[in-house]
Amino acid sequence: MDSLEKIVSLCKRRGFIFPGSDVYGGFAGTWDFGPLGTTLKKNLMDAWWKFFVDDRDNIYGIDAAILMNPKTWEASGHTSTFADPLVECKECKSRFRADKIANNITESVTTEEFLDTHTKCPVCGKESWGPIRKFNMMFTTHVGAVLPDDNDELSQKSIAYLRPETAQGIFTNYKNVVDTIYPNLPFGLAQQGKAFRNEISPRDFILRDRECSQMEIEYFVAPDTWEDNFEIMRKAQHEFLEKIAGLNPSSIHEYEVPPEDRAHYSKRTIDFMFDYPNGEEELMGLAYRTDFDLSNIQKASGKSMEYRDKITKEAFIPHVIEPSIGVERLFLAVLSTAYHEDEVNGEKRIVLKLPEHLAPYKYCVSPLLKNKPELVEKAKTVYNLLRKKYGNITWDDSGNIGKRYRKQDEIGTPKCVVIDFETLENNTVTIRDRDTTEQIRKDIANL
Amino acid sequence: MDSLEKIVSLCKRRGFIFPGSDVYGGFAGTWDFGPLGTTLKKNLMDAWWKFFVDDRDNIYGIDAAILMNPKTWEASGHTSTFADPLVECKECKSRFRADKIANNITESVTTEEFLDTHTKCPVCGKESWGPIRKFNMMFTTHVGAVLPDDNDELSQKSIAYLRPETAQGIFTNYKNVVDTIYPNLPFGLAQQGKAFRNEISPRDFILRDRECSQMEIEYFVAPDTWEDNFEIMRKAQHEFLEKIAGLNPSSIHEYEVPPEDRAHYSKRTIDFMFDYPNGEEELMGLAYRTDFDLSNIQKASGKSMEYRDKITKEAFIPHVIEPSIGVERLFLAVLSTAYHEDEVNGEKRIVLKLPEHLAPYKYCVSPLLKNKPELVEKAKTVYNLLRKKYGNITWDDSGNIGKRYRKQDEIGTPKCVVIDFETLENNTVTIRDRDTTEQIRKDIANL
Repeated sequence: MDSLEKIVSLCKRRGFIFPGSDVYGGFAGTWDFGPLGTTLKKNLMDAWWKFFVDDRDNIYGIDAAILMNPKTWEASGHTSTFADPLVECKECKSRFRADKIANNITESVTTEEFLDTHTKCPVCGKESWGPIRKFNMMFTTHVGAVLPDDNDELSQKSIAYLRPETAQGIFTNYKNVVDTIYPNLPFGLAQQGKAFRNEISPRDFILRDRECSQMEIEYFVAPDTWEDNFEIMRKAQHEFLEKIAGLNPSSIHEYEVPPEDRAHYSKRTIDFMFDYPNGEEELMGLAYRTDFDLSNIQKASGKSMEYRDKITKEAFIPHVIEPSIGVERLFLAVLSTAYHEDEVNGEKRIVLKLPEHLAPYKYCVSPLLKNKPELVEKAKTVYNLLRKKYGNITWDDSGNIGKRYRKQDEIGTPKCVVIDFETLENNTVTIRDRDTTEQIRKDIANL
Repeated sequence: MDSLEKIVSLCKRRGFIFPGSDVYGGFAGTWDFGPLGTTLKKNLMDAWWKFFVDDRDNIYGIDAAILMNPKTWEASGHTSTFADPLVECKECKSRFRADKIANNITESVTTEEFLDTHTKCPVCGKESWGPIRKFNMMFTTHVGAVLPDDNDELSQKSIAYLRPETAQGIFTNYKNVVDTIYPNLPFGLAQQGKAFRNEISPRDFILRDRECSQMEIEYFVAPDTWEDNFEIMRKAQHEFLEKIAGLNPSSIHEYEVPPEDRAHYSKRTIDFMFDYPNGEEELMGLAYRTDFDLSNIQKASGKSMEYRDKITKEAFIPHVIEPSIGVERLFLAVLSTAYHEDEVNGEKRIVLKLPEHLAPYKYCVSPLLKNKPELVEKAKTVYNLLRKKYGNITWDDSGNIGKRYRKQDEIGTPKCVVIDFETLENNTVTIRDRDTTEQIRKDIANL
């Protein structure tokens, strides 16, 4: 097993992440978070919100709907450009993303270029291809009382999309925010929420899924200050990734995206790459989007997106710096950083060295023996005491103490507290550290 | 203006809730939360999570995908029964939910019954109706590389739905949870997330929208204990609604749903009704769903949903108690409870008497005059002090002090702290109470 497989296996075994709709044989590109994964994901999202929104004076929250007026995606360019090159094998009818099955071609590959690669069909092995077609990755749906037997015109008029990014939910609310709270520049609007991409071939566990959670900030700045603000945001991202998410700085690599590879709206983009178990992959992006989005909204809506400076009274369309991160990508980065294998007393051990503030449980409390009522009762008292003090803690009286330690190591619980016969005598407990496996005795009063 | 309109107006004016895609003229049935609404919604959802998940030993979190294997909705009955009666005016082609435009008919109305009501078209006034047709409220989409010009068979095979409830995301994960953490019965699985319903006529502000957030618990119990557990959950709901969400107990009415009106899966349901400004409406539901869902999943998946009792070793399919609440419905209940109009010094005042732990800002700090640097500087010190202590607080130096109070009253800030010349002399500040409008002086050290 390579180490990504090991993490996938741990996730399922311990209830972090299950394949979506697992009971029905799954549903490609979707994943469900189990009890521990839900807590870890929530801890990560809350930590991000605290760091970027609550702890700052000039970043505000937005929570926009997933279903948006389709004009949004025309103005943003998604209707025309958010597409992958799709190719079909004429023999077995399998469909693929052309740039993923052939080497050294890009998303803008032509039919001729693709045929020149002489790629064989990964399913049937034949080389018999149809033309490259553009496949738009936005999921479509119909909104309103439209029935399956309705005519095409009515169906067309009712089309809406599942948002492919949370960013546009922020841009479309910019004007309402300025009109209601009129914040000073620079200010940011932050959003956490679901986004959907109809990937032709979902893959790499939660890295390339069809439904993901994004955390994005649109940071609105005066045009001539973009470079300084870009640096401020860049520094803040590093601080978050390293100090809050606990990632190793040496695993994060900045990749300055060259002009020809940048999205059409961006004048500067840094991809923050991370050393995942299966190789270097994008963890997040920091983009200078200029006034691309607000200008397009102004054109499409006919409403002014100008901001009037409070002192100079000058009016202009703000420019935007956007840090954007996928929760699942961050989740996997945190898990792979935490995942360790070592040996304890000659036995192989798997341990998740999660930062304490992210771990699903802070403490595990257990009685040395579960068939001694006096130990169980005392342990329950300690459990309730710690629960009040630290919130999320867990109880474990299964198997023997060694097995319990292994289990808590695998789910990343920093400390195990064990109540034994000595506890009944002198009110001290054993505290065992996840990372060092060292045990110390401590008075209950000093926990 | 009736009082619902007043609340809608306040929500837009102060940045709680904007119409979805407002800049493009809106998008029916969708709503976007602005800066203050996002914080209030988050506070409500976090309070629910703490009350039902973190503070309990036997309720665990789940966070399942919105896109699920379509078998889910066949097994749950949604594909066949989650439908409204749709009727079309033959004259002007407008479409309506039959039971909403005619009096005294139910969702199961037949064409004959509807024609007998002699309802006129709300748009053109004619009485010329087509037959009643069943309109399934699930939004459909296509998953995978399916192109618009593909044949019908391929399109049909790729159909998926936006989940119409979060509940099934829990039921489909039940087996994986039991297999991984094997909790004792009773145990609950809780989920917060988006659900989608293609309402024919979205209306009543955020009460009947096409996209909403749900908070649901499936509480798995031994079959012969359902009545006790139903009572435990019923009590817990009241405690949450009254103590945590701050709703007035006299505004909550339990409605025991009679057998003929209950959902097909339920053997007992209590609707918790709330006195909204526009009348009594459902706030949440508490349903005994028997083993309906798990049994159907067992049939559809071929996998055993039995739970093996840890002591008796007896195996059975657990029964389920489900408390289910819509975040938007709770949000509006909280807002309407908080909304008050009164008079202060002969002037009309609007005030949101939100519980302190839910208010978007706990404190507002401001200097008496914004053009006195010594006041501003001192106020900033106090601001930073309170921010560290209480988190979300706000700064306001706009307009005169009376205007600032009005604004903070409208957004529900419990306390306003004002730094004046006396502060510079003796380190005391004015603290003004939102509800009583009383002002007291207090030493900064005792804040």
